[in-house]
Amino acid sequence: MGEVLKKEAYGLAVKDESGVISPFRFSRRHEIVGVVTEVGAKVTKFNAGDKVGVGYMVSSCGSCETCIDDQENYCPKMILTSGGKYYDDTITYGGYSDHMVCEEDYIIRIPENLPLDATAPLLCAGTTVYSPMKYHGLDKPGMHIGVVGLGGLGHVAVKFAKAMGTKVTVISTSDRKRDEALTRLGADLFLVSRDPEQMKDAMGTMDGIIDTVSAPHPVLPILDLLKYKGKLIMVGAPDKPLELPVLPLIFGKSHLF
Amino acid sequence: MGEVLKKEAYGLAVKDESGVISPFRFSRRHEIVGVVTEVGAKVTKFNAGDKVGVGYMVSSCGSCETCIDDQENYCPKMILTSGGKYYDDTITYGGYSDHMVCEEDYIIRIPENLPLDATAPLLCAGTTVYSPMKYHGLDKPGMHIGVVGLGGLGHVAVKFAKAMGTKVTVISTSDRKRDEALTRLGADLFLVSRDPEQMKDAMGTMDGIIDTVSAPHPVLPILDLLKYKGKLIMVGAPDKPLELPVLPLIFGKSHLF
Repeated sequence: MGEVLKKEAYGLAVKDESGVISPFRFSRRHEIVGVVTEVGAKVTKFNAGDKVGVGYMVSSCGSCETCIDDQENYCPKMILTSGGKYYDDTITYGGYSDHMVCEEDYIIRIPENLPLDATAPLLCAGTTVYSPMKYHGLDKPGMHIGVVGLGGLGHVAVKFAKAMGTKVTVISTSDRKRDEALTRLGADLFLVSRDPEQMKDAMGTMDGIIDTVSAPHPVLPILDLLKYKGKLIMVGAPDKPLELPVLPLIFGKSHLF
Repeated sequence: MGEVLKKEAYGLAVKDESGVISPFRFSRRHEIVGVVTEVGAKVTKFNAGDKVGVGYMVSSCGSCETCIDDQENYCPKMILTSGGKYYDDTITYGGYSDHMVCEEDYIIRIPENLPLDATAPLLCAGTTVYSPMKYHGLDKPGMHIGVVGLGGLGHVAVKFAKAMGTKVTVISTSDRKRDEALTRLGADLFLVSRDPEQMKDAMGTMDGIIDTVSAPHPVLPILDLLKYKGKLIMVGAPDKPLELPVLPLIFGKSHLF
């Protein structure tokens, strides 16, 4: 495989017998969907004409502990779809290209009935919230799930959580997105994080929370919303460290501190 | 039970049929060991003369989700051994008293061959490190466990971890405690956290880390020591929040940030 992925492979050249070539209809650099135009001789899972997508990685070693455990994103040799360095030292361009070659193990089939433009965000924003919700068991019908922030990640989290059969509360700093949350996205409840009364009433009610906010923000009031053994999943990535108060975590009673 | 636990019950008065009275030989306010002098009529697990200990709580509701799950320390009605408020609004004095009454469910039998003075610290420091090591599965022979800080909690963590059959590395800011760690406590390795070379060489080698340091300190270099899916357990409780860098946690590659 390595030999094939020279620079021209990101254009139309097909040198990789295990690769698929797809012209991208809708893409950002790492949320890519399109139609397969040609497949390498070793490709078994896809055919020309298939609707497919590629996420934020195009390769990993396939043999390390994390790869064997289906957590290839932690593989030390994982290669990003764009801005990564391939085995031959060429830079990956992902969705910045019109066409790309990708190993079939990193390609996802898109059902025929999904429109490509609406599907693209699932390849990063979608899996960013879906994957931890499944991995940490926050996908059980009847659970109460909080979603902090209603942006690119948050709105998909609400849709997934509702589809999983959970009760969903959107937590936002102001009332501005209440209608969008409740009416358009189908959330069950809306909570204004800057309203101490609302936050107090909701303490200890949630099984899990997906925090999608990328700006620095206090996590303690959010932790307070969790039930015993509740889980807080941080998927927003503030550029500054968050403040983590340890004592309230240990005692599970932040109001004591 | 409730009726019994009036103020005098913390002296010698025995009004609680389910209580045990024990004069404490060695105690701090919440790490208490002693010998049972008298038992209430409903007591079934202990007899006068038994060596027993009491930890940091003397009661909980017994019927909530956390109590049923054997995590009574999270029960909203949990009562601390000292400085807590009992059902009748009296203050608990724990090991500040010469005698105390305690419900038998919160009393632990001390084996005959253990000296009382050396046993007392197990009732808080001991269980503080033992309990999370068991709960989070860091007790498997062959695992590599890090212990950050070698004080009251850390030295017990080393002893437990060795007794569990794990390989133990003590992580400290200087070389000062190397001999104590390796020779006296039997740790396998010693790592100076302020030495970037040593820390780099140890990256990704540990299955779990018990961080016992109560002073504010950077956690990212400690997280770097963990293997994939490794666990960091914070039992030291700095009075200021720790800085939690989210992006490196998400990517598992702190050196990228």
